[in-house]
Amino acid sequence: MTDCQVTDCEDVILSMRLIVDQLNDVINRLENEAIKGMLQKTLDAERIFLMGAGRSGLVAKAFAMRLMHLGFTVYVVGETTTPAVQEKDVVIAISGSGETRSIANLGKIVKDIGSTLITVTSKKESTLGRISDIAMVLPSKTKDDLDAGGYLERNMRGDYKNLPPLGTAFEITSLVFLDSVIAQLITLTGASEAELKSRHTNIE
Amino acid sequence: MTDCQVTDCEDVILSMRLIVDQLNDVINRLENEAIKGMLQKTLDAERIFLMGAGRSGLVAKAFAMRLMHLGFTVYVVGETTTPAVQEKDVVIAISGSGETRSIANLGKIVKDIGSTLITVTSKKESTLGRISDIAMVLPSKTKDDLDAGGYLERNMRGDYKNLPPLGTAFEITSLVFLDSVIAQLITLTGASEAELKSRHTNIE
Amino acid sequence: MTDCQVTDCEDVILSMRLIVDQLNDVINRLENEAIKGMLQKTLDAERIFLMGAGRSGLVAKAFAMRLMHLGFTVYVVGETTTPAVQEKDVVIAISGSGETRSIANLGKIVKDIGSTLITVTSKKESTLGRISDIAMVLPSKTKDDLDAGGYLERNMRGDYKNLPPLGTAFEITSLVFLDSVIAQLITLTGASEAELKSRHTNIE
Amino acid sequence: MTDCQVTDCEDVILSMRLIVDQLNDVINRLENEAIKGMLQKTLDAERIFLMGAGRSGLVAKAFAMRLMHLGFTVYVVGETTTPAVQEKDVVIAISGSGETRSIANLGKIVKDIGSTLITVTSKKESTLGRISDIAMVLPSKTKDDLDAGGYLERNMRGDYKNLPPLGTAFEITSLVFLDSVIAQLITLTGASEAELKSRHTNIE
Repeated sequence: MTDCQVTDCEDVILSMRLIVDQLNDVINRLENEAIKGMLQKTLDAERIFLMGAGRSGLVAKAFAMRLMHLGFTVYVVGETTTPAVQEKDVVIAISGSGETRSIANLGKIVKDIGSTLITVTSKKESTLGRISDIAMVLPSKTKDDLDAGGYLERNMRGDYKNLPPLGTAFEITSLVFLDSVIAQLITLTGASEAELKSRHTNIE
Repeated sequence: MTDCQVTDCEDVILSMRLIVDQLNDVINRLENEAIKGMLQKTLDAERIFLMGAGRSGLVAKAFAMRLMHLGFTVYVVGETTTPAVQEKDVVIAISGSGETRSIANLGKIVKDIGSTLITVTSKKESTLGRISDIAMVLPSKTKDDLDAGGYLERNMRGDYKNLPPLGTAFEITSLVFLDSVIAQLITLTGASEAELKSRHTNIE
Repeated sequence: MTDCQVTDCEDVILSMRLIVDQLNDVINRLENEAIKGMLQKTLDAERIFLMGAGRSGLVAKAFAMRLMHLGFTVYVVGETTTPAVQEKDVVIAISGSGETRSIANLGKIVKDIGSTLITVTSKKESTLGRISDIAMVLPSKTKDDLDAGGYLERNMRGDYKNLPPLGTAFEITSLVFLDSVIAQLITLTGASEAELKSRHTNIE
Repeated sequence: MTDCQVTDCEDVILSMRLIVDQLNDVINRLENEAIKGMLQKTLDAERIFLMGAGRSGLVAKAFAMRLMHLGFTVYVVGETTTPAVQEKDVVIAISGSGETRSIANLGKIVKDIGSTLITVTSKKESTLGRISDIAMVLPSKTKDDLDAGGYLERNMRGDYKNLPPLGTAFEITSLVFLDSVIAQLITLTGASEAELKSRHTNIE
């Protein structure tokens, strides 16, 4: 791409340290009531739907995969055989800005249907944050408008305002948070590695 | 799923702190020569291909998306219009164990073709680690066999040995590392947010 | 799912015959000028983007894969490394009703950018048909509103009005048509199977 | 791509007619016993899994989507939340040659698990055809080796031997056949459009 010679890799290390700092900052500012509410609604759900655009969509899939491993009935919005959302379902949206257009539009439909909506976001006061039953806030320094507009639209227009390192904070934070939610769900459901293995022994 | 009542969320916080510890541990044990080699080969590549299975595949996609934003010609193996790999291409594999069957098989084909293979892994002494031009090691406590076997095969068999919290370490570590590689590439290519925006002004 | 016993398979054969009738009907009603325009714009394009929702999205991917095999630079909107659309690009939308909300919205953005928009549809007088540079009409008995509304929205609401056999006509017709466009492009670009193979000999 | 001028579109029309001829030929050569067996096993299945590579994978998804609309519990192998296959599940593979490596390998695992395997293929005497409980043959002129080898492998190597028009026959034939299976399943399950709509009325 360029003719430049790589003489050091200080920025890699520096950036990793900044991300760790950001994570430590978030850990100290999490609202326990929101976490407990999210855990309770996840445990009580008959079916769970995950949705997100772009890199947040990849985080949504990573979380959905783990929930499936734990035995939950879980779907990713937009995949081939994802069924219609019903009133008693729980839908979890991942959106840093809380404004990603396609996800915000689907969030409104979720509330029309009467389902429970949980949004993992860095902005409580956002379109998605305001209409959600639980706004699970992962605070960050992300500017308000970073993730606004439709994801595919911005991609089409080449509008990559939320480039790293700024834009990556939310996706990493949400992946770390959601994998930690999985750790708690393992405790709550009493699933041990041994039990999980035994559940599947008949088909190995 | 169960009738249990959520009374606290200590495991969420504890798990997040453990992940931060793991990240700090990895930062201190990275090999600078491997990082610099990976940066140089990425910059020199005409085309870059990413591949990974399951959650490592999601990390591969998250990295590919950022490389595209930076102006690299980049493809994800398995997507609709990904072309044939050629000798002068660089292929980056993401595999915690370095043994994921489908990815290891494709890695061998990449070396048959004569292309450059970089593997991001926690195991230098693994099938993929041994055949790679660069084994970019992100050390972890992951057991050797955690990720062995074909991904789709293990999924079919219900073999979820690498459940969180253990199994998540590699995926989070690799996402943090690769986003930090992006930060360095921004410096090296001289791409500022302003420049990146100006490059696209004509189509907004 | 039910306890019923299968005693015959007459509907399978009958349905296949109806689909063949529908195909014959479409072949006789195609507008040659639109086909030639679509072929010319495809050949002249520097880059081609495909888009579609649901099963039409699968047809879009099947066409994109073949264009890639022929040597075209081609992307599917929504995949990981699909770049921003630019003025000189050609975007091909697949939408039976020409009203699928997400695709119609993206079509408007494509025209804002100034790119060429081709829509393969059964309805010339539709949102997408009206704004397209070429509306490639595959006539069918599909009711006007069959595919209206956002695809993910209708999926969420469980709104499956366009169930087979009616709804399938367009998807099959468009796959048959687009594979036949590929046959013509092979003739026009002079690509023989031998040439296509020789182009890749160095990497086998 | 080239400077050629498009003066006619005869090959498009000709190719469409050839595809219709091929479809008529297949309709007359279908084995009713295999169709009835496939219908019965599909109706009796608790859960259905679809798999296929490349364009056959797109056909698999198109069929899976319709089965979901009809109320079946259905998954696509390789998607985010697809669970482990169990003994009483039915797995449907789509493979023109019956030799696509990744799908053939998964087919063997399906039989190891003890599940029911149905393969939609043009070759009864193929790896997948031989191990399947039902080999649903859609006869074609496709050469034996057209689809052999791993799909991702061939893609990587740039091995596009099964280019259109030859290679497309199976994908179109299987889509037409499977949509016609859906038509029969609608009859067998007694699902009317009205009933399907009423089932979802509460969430519109």
